Amino acid sequence: MTDNKATNVVWHQGHVDRDDRRAILKQQGCTIWLTGLPSSGKSTVGFSLEHALIQQGRLAYVLDGDNIRHGLCKNLGFSAEDPAENIRRIGEGAKLFADLGVITIASFVSPYRADRDAVRKLHEAAKIPFVEVFVDTPVEVCEERDPKGLYKKARAGEIKNFTGVSDPYEKPTNPEIVIKAGEIGREDCVNAVSTYLQQKGVFA
Amino acid sequence: MTDNKATNVVWHQGHVDRDDRRAILKQQGCTIWLTGLPSSGKSTVGFSLEHALIQQGRLAYVLDGDNIRHGLCKNLGFSAEDPAENIRRIGEGAKLFADLGVITIASFVSPYRADRDAVRKLHEAAKIPFVEVFVDTPVEVCEERDPKGLYKKARAGEIKNFTGVSDPYEKPTNPEIVIKAGEIGREDCVNAVSTYLQQKGVFA
Repeated sequence: MTDNKATNVVWHQGHVDRDDRRAILKQQGCTIWLTGLPSSGKSTVGFSLEHALIQQGRLAYVLDGDNIRHGLCKNLGFSAEDPAENIRRIGEGAKLFADLGVITIASFVSPYRADRDAVRKLHEAAKIPFVEVFVDTPVEVCEERDPKGLYKKARAGEIKNFTGVSDPYEKPTNPEIVIKAGEIGREDCVNAVSTYLQQKGVFA
Repeated sequence: MTDNKATNVVWHQGHVDRDDRRAILKQQGCTIWLTGLPSSGKSTVGFSLEHALIQQGRLAYVLDGDNIRHGLCKNLGFSAEDPAENIRRIGEGAKLFADLGVITIASFVSPYRADRDAVRKLHEAAKIPFVEVFVDTPVEVCEERDPKGLYKKARAGEIKNFTGVSDPYEKPTNPEIVIKAGEIGREDCVNAVSTYLQQKGVFA
C-alpha cells in the first residue's frame, strides 16, 4: 500500500466490533438453546420462532440436527461419536452466529446438564446472552407422537442409548424458560420466548 | 402441541429461505475470496473493506487465519495438517455465512488453483456469488514488507514449505478482480471491490 501510514479513521485496522453490527441489525445476537426429549417439539418451536422473528424483520437462524449434520458441519468434522464433544462444537458454532448478531436458535436433545452448562459458560465469557429453554413435554406424550418411529425402535432394542428410554435426560435446574409444549399451542410457545427476548432488551 | 394441524401460514414449518434474509438485510450474501502471497496485503484490504461496508450499514465479516485458528474454528477441528482440506473447510464456512446474508471476506494465501476452484464450485452449486480477488503484489514487495519476519525465516531455512520462497503460488487464471496492492492505496483497493459488488447487484 502506498498509504500505509494514513491515519484517517475510515481505514481503521482491526476487526469491526459487535456493537457496530448490533447497530446495523438493531438487535443483540444471542443463543436460544432448546433442550428436551426426542419428539418433545423442540424443532417445531424453533422453526416457528425463526419464522415469527423473520416476519418481524429480525435476523434469526435455526441450528438443528439436520442442518448441523448435512449443512453447517458436514465438512467441519462434526459427528456423533462423542456426544459431549458434539454439543461443545455446536455451542461454539452458535456462539459465533450470536457474535455476528444473529438470534441463533439451537435445537438439540442435549440430555446432559454439564454439557449445556459448558455452552452457557462459553457464552457468558463472551458476554453473549444464553437463553436455556426447557421444552418440557412428558415422555408419554413424546412417545405417542414419535414421528420418526424412534421410540418404537428403542423399545424394541433396535436403537441403543436412546434418551428417554435407555439413556437418562437430565432436566435443566434453572432454565430461563420452561415451555410445556404438550399443553400449550405453538403460538404460545413462540410468544413465551419472544416476550422474554423483549424484556431482556435483545431488540433495539 | 395442541394446534399441530393449524394451517395458518404464520406457523409455516421448515426453514426460512435466503430471500427472506436478503429482504431484511437489503443485501445479497456473497463470498469475497482474497488470495495472494504472504504479506501481499490481503488482510489489510479485507479489514479495510469490512470497515467501509459496516460504515455503509452493510453486514460484513472477515474470515482470516487469525480468527479461523483462534475463533471460529478453534474447536471445529480446523488445522493446517492438510492445506487442501483446510481451504475446503474454510470454503464451507464462508458459504454458510454468505447463505445467512453476510458479505463474507475470506483472506487466505490459498496458493493452489484447484483448492480455490473447488470453493468456487461449492458456491456456484448453491447459487451464491463467489468473487475471487487476486491481491497481486510482487514477491519482492511482499518480502520487503514481511511484517512478521516470515520471509526472512523461510530464506534462512527455518520455515519449510513457505509460499513464494520454497513453495509455489499458482496465480488465478480468471479472477473477478485483480488488485495491485503494491501500487495503489488502500482506498482504491476497497473501491475496486465495492464497485464490483455494486455492479453485480449485491446491494439491494
